[in-house]
Amino acid sequence: MAPRYAPSLRSRMPPLAIVLQVSFIVLFAFFVETGDPEEGDEKFINSYANFQDVHVMVFLGFGFLASFLVRYGFSSVGFSMLVAAMAVQWATLLNGFLLTSSPSWKIRIKMKSLVDAEICASSALLAMGAVHGKTNPVQLLLMSLMEVTGFVINQWLIHSLFKTMSSIMSLHVFGTLFGVMTSWVLYRTENMPKHEKEKFDSKSGLFAMFGTLFLWMFWPSFNSALVKYKIIAYGTYLSLAVSTVTAMAVSALSSPTGKMNLVHIQGSILAGGVATGIAVTAVPWMDMTIGFCAALLATLGFRYLKGHMLHAFEIHDTRGVLNVHAIPGILGYLAYLLIRLVRLEDTTVAVRFAVNHICILLITVSMSLVLGMFTGFLIKWSFWKPHQDRKCFDDQAFWEFPHLAVRK
Amino acid sequence: MAPRYAPSLRSRMPPLAIVLQVSFIVLFAFFVETGDPEEGDEKFINSYANFQDVHVMVFLGFGFLASFLVRYGFSSVGFSMLVAAMAVQWATLLNGFLLTSSPSWKIRIKMKSLVDAEICASSALLAMGAVHGKTNPVQLLLMSLMEVTGFVINQWLIHSLFKTMSSIMSLHVFGTLFGVMTSWVLYRTENMPKHEKEKFDSKSGLFAMFGTLFLWMFWPSFNSALVKYKIIAYGTYLSLAVSTVTAMAVSALSSPTGKMNLVHIQGSILAGGVATGIAVTAVPWMDMTIGFCAALLATLGFRYLKGHMLHAFEIHDTRGVLNVHAIPGILGYLAYLLIRLVRLEDTTVAVRFAVNHICILLITVSMSLVLGMFTGFLIKWSFWKPHQDRKCFDDQAFWEFPHLAVRK
Amino acid sequence: MAPRYAPSLRSRMPPLAIVLQVSFIVLFAFFVETGDPEEGDEKFINSYANFQDVHVMVFLGFGFLASFLVRYGFSSVGFSMLVAAMAVQWATLLNGFLLTSSPSWKIRIKMKSLVDAEICASSALLAMGAVHGKTNPVQLLLMSLMEVTGFVINQWLIHSLFKTMSSIMSLHVFGTLFGVMTSWVLYRTENMPKHEKEKFDSKSGLFAMFGTLFLWMFWPSFNSALVKYKIIAYGTYLSLAVSTVTAMAVSALSSPTGKMNLVHIQGSILAGGVATGIAVTAVPWMDMTIGFCAALLATLGFRYLKGHMLHAFEIHDTRGVLNVHAIPGILGYLAYLLIRLVRLEDTTVAVRFAVNHICILLITVSMSLVLGMFTGFLIKWSFWKPHQDRKCFDDQAFWEFPHLAVRK
Repeated sequence: MAPRYAPSLRSRMPPLAIVLQVSFIVLFAFFVETGDPEEGDEKFINSYANFQDVHVMVFLGFGFLASFLVRYGFSSVGFSMLVAAMAVQWATLLNGFLLTSSPSWKIRIKMKSLVDAEICASSALLAMGAVHGKTNPVQLLLMSLMEVTGFVINQWLIHSLFKTMSSIMSLHVFGTLFGVMTSWVLYRTENMPKHEKEKFDSKSGLFAMFGTLFLWMFWPSFNSALVKYKIIAYGTYLSLAVSTVTAMAVSALSSPTGKMNLVHIQGSILAGGVATGIAVTAVPWMDMTIGFCAALLATLGFRYLKGHMLHAFEIHDTRGVLNVHAIPGILGYLAYLLIRLVRLEDTTVAVRFAVNHICILLITVSMSLVLGMFTGFLIKWSFWKPHQDRKCFDDQAFWEFPHLAVRK
Repeated sequence: MAPRYAPSLRSRMPPLAIVLQVSFIVLFAFFVETGDPEEGDEKFINSYANFQDVHVMVFLGFGFLASFLVRYGFSSVGFSMLVAAMAVQWATLLNGFLLTSSPSWKIRIKMKSLVDAEICASSALLAMGAVHGKTNPVQLLLMSLMEVTGFVINQWLIHSLFKTMSSIMSLHVFGTLFGVMTSWVLYRTENMPKHEKEKFDSKSGLFAMFGTLFLWMFWPSFNSALVKYKIIAYGTYLSLAVSTVTAMAVSALSSPTGKMNLVHIQGSILAGGVATGIAVTAVPWMDMTIGFCAALLATLGFRYLKGHMLHAFEIHDTRGVLNVHAIPGILGYLAYLLIRLVRLEDTTVAVRFAVNHICILLITVSMSLVLGMFTGFLIKWSFWKPHQDRKCFDDQAFWEFPHLAVRK
Repeated sequence: MAPRYAPSLRSRMPPLAIVLQVSFIVLFAFFVETGDPEEGDEKFINSYANFQDVHVMVFLGFGFLASFLVRYGFSSVGFSMLVAAMAVQWATLLNGFLLTSSPSWKIRIKMKSLVDAEICASSALLAMGAVHGKTNPVQLLLMSLMEVTGFVINQWLIHSLFKTMSSIMSLHVFGTLFGVMTSWVLYRTENMPKHEKEKFDSKSGLFAMFGTLFLWMFWPSFNSALVKYKIIAYGTYLSLAVSTVTAMAVSALSSPTGKMNLVHIQGSILAGGVATGIAVTAVPWMDMTIGFCAALLATLGFRYLKGHMLHAFEIHDTRGVLNVHAIPGILGYLAYLLIRLVRLEDTTVAVRFAVNHICILLITVSMSLVLGMFTGFLIKWSFWKPHQDRKCFDDQAFWEFPHLAVRK
């Protein structure tokens, strides 16, 4: 193999993707059928608009959010799409088998199953954010299937043990910690302290802003798709507005020259949405306070924690998912606990409630750490032809650029 | 005229556009009125969200999809918008006169008339995709009016002869073949084998990806706007997911270096949506299989057929609409026929069904070929001041770039 | 401080933003509560989709519309977001106190209050368009708070005096004239005749096109969110289509070389939406005629009036808001008056109607001029550390570009 070129994926990616895809089609042929065609049109349309917002977030938002890397735009958008398209199919099957209490083995596709599948896909995309730029599409495919499997099993475990669902917390916490652990295993010493291609420019920053904005604008829909009562959309809206102001102010305050960092802000303005969706307070000022704290922690995390994770723990978190999703997620979960505990009068109930919910958090955290590490070792295997350190954060390893190619 | 500059359109485009626009306003004044103001708010809102998705696809999706040409972004987005804005007005009139069975000559604007008009506009945009970069706005205006007229007459003919509508098949097949024939007539030998400006770069590819994604994400809405029962959205969704995985895998597999081609993928991931919308199976695995085959054919078409069409038939299809729309469209139509034929028990009925539907396809194909060729000769006329070969795929022929202009 | 760098905002922007943000949270804690959780889900969803379109316009559309400046993309999008996020919070409070006739001091958040808040934010963004590139974020924050305050007080005054609301006219006219006056006060002689960085290139033009398209596509939703009967969406749709054709034709016609100017077109194609939303004719051809006239005036305004305003009155209007919003707004208002007057049979009623509505216009105009001028003097104060003339239209004054920074 010539050392100057990235290894060709022709013998790895297409066979794996096609085999997986054909298997999925066969599984769908046996187990999946479409929902009732007589389902009320109006009901369909109501949930369709909500689904559509989530769909835009998952396929457009996350893909473009990651496109800030100046030479990695095609991969950011393309691989996000590939991962999400695989993940929704696999998640539809897994969710149908494990989380639907239906007597038969048949899975019925409804709006809700699509929304649930997209939630799983978005947790896989979070995990991908941590290893972004350092993995090839074969590794990403494997990682996303592992992540979705782990995520659904975690949901099923929590549901079996505690008779409760907490998809929105585990979405953020599971996905992130899974990705961070994978990134730790995949750590490449040669890229220290910073890879020369890991940077943004004035155009790639705008593409990323565009993905960020779709996430930001539709986050109220995302939260209200996951939580039973819809008015959480109001709180999320306010919390996101507060996050935006806070993130910009703190980003300027924590810079020696008083300048803001666009990529930090892109992550931090979303922190309020993450935390509010988990806390579910339904009180405007509380949501706003949570948004303030989440954005504060996320922005400081980008400034100080991210470098510390890299130097002290050798964890390189490309998109800073730890700051955007894990920390605000845990903050929101603690706020959720605290608010419920204060309202509970009976101490026994309160203690049981607290213990249960802390157990849920611990199970989610430990499962994600263990599975993430395991996945890291699996995809580190040289059989998957990981690319050289020099080819990290570089589209040319995977994409044709006709004007550069030698004409045959 | 100095040969170095593209011919000025000042004496052609503005007069034509303004005369057409004023005529449309006059026609609207005589024949069009707004729908009932007391139309139920709720009904309006339900169809409005669906319409809005189609609206985004037509005006944003198609325009940005074509913006992959590195020096032709303004024209891609601007001319698509100009063509669509003209086409929707003309289509509203034509649809109202020919396809609405109203006793009076009055046309009532309803949500449905807007959706129908946008369907016609999107067929004109498909046709435009084949001649993209090689025509000036005057030629595009004329071509789109011809295409919309032909498309509506074809619909009316099919409706009169067979008492059935097949807008979604003829949308893809008519528009594409019309454009391909026009492109054949307009063929410029000098641009062989490849125009130096017909290429994409890392930013223009992302702009195109962004248009592609809006088409891809909202295609379920597009299909469910055109077909009576809404759950086709599920099948389209799954089919598009399969298309995405397949297109990426086949693109890498068919490249000697194992690399993917972003522009090929941008076309091919949409193929599943095209085919599924026509096949209307309502069985998930069938939709997925159709999506798989459509993406496979489209990707191979980009790799092998496109060059063959150029060298053997002198057909230069800028956006590859033949691969994205015509081939998956015909595939979907055959699947549609096959599925219905298998379900029909009575042989006489089955034979009549098959003959009818093959006639519909043949009528659509022949009308599009004849009208496309005729339109090609019409707009090739030098009166419309086509630009030089050197100025193809170049925004500077039509748009001011202030920093380049000599200050007056 | 070295004169080569823009002044650091560390001691101004973060403290101001954080103090304001914390005050808003405190005010929300005392005065704001979430709407009824038992509010019908369906009703929520219906208005939610409409709100979401407005939300996209305000946060994405206006921000990207302004990103045509080649070196000012981050600021365009970032500061628009900062201003809008502040403005919606402040507007929610002000609207609740002044415009809701509730006996208690409690403000209930409903969909309508969010839509109203976003309307106020969009009027602040219009004002910002006139001073775009020549102000720092501290100045923008102050300006937007002043603008929202003035806008709400103007609404309250009109409502108290004339028992009528005219939010859609005053949105366009108040915001624009306010911004134009501020821009006049802030005029920098050194930037004459044109700042070297005030230009667009082929990529920044596409980013701006993308914002424009979202405004253009969702403008029917914007108008129908503000007006009681929904079918205004049809008229707005047609009017915008006519505007598009007209703007492109007139832009080519008024250029010596017959070329179109993308930035002019981006403004002018929206003019029809502005005028139609105010005129509310409900007759298709009237809406189309208004769209034609509005786009004609706006395009000619960009070509001739904009330079005249600069040279004769020393008013530099970066985004040309005068042409896009004020002139079509007043045109639409006159059409509104004329149509109503023709329909009124009783002369006394007609005269009173005309006088009332002309008074409303005059009050709006004078309030906006006076408050805009006052705000201009307030934010010109050197305490807010305005940046040097050389740093206008330049992201580097406010944003970190890691690859340019000296590594610590």
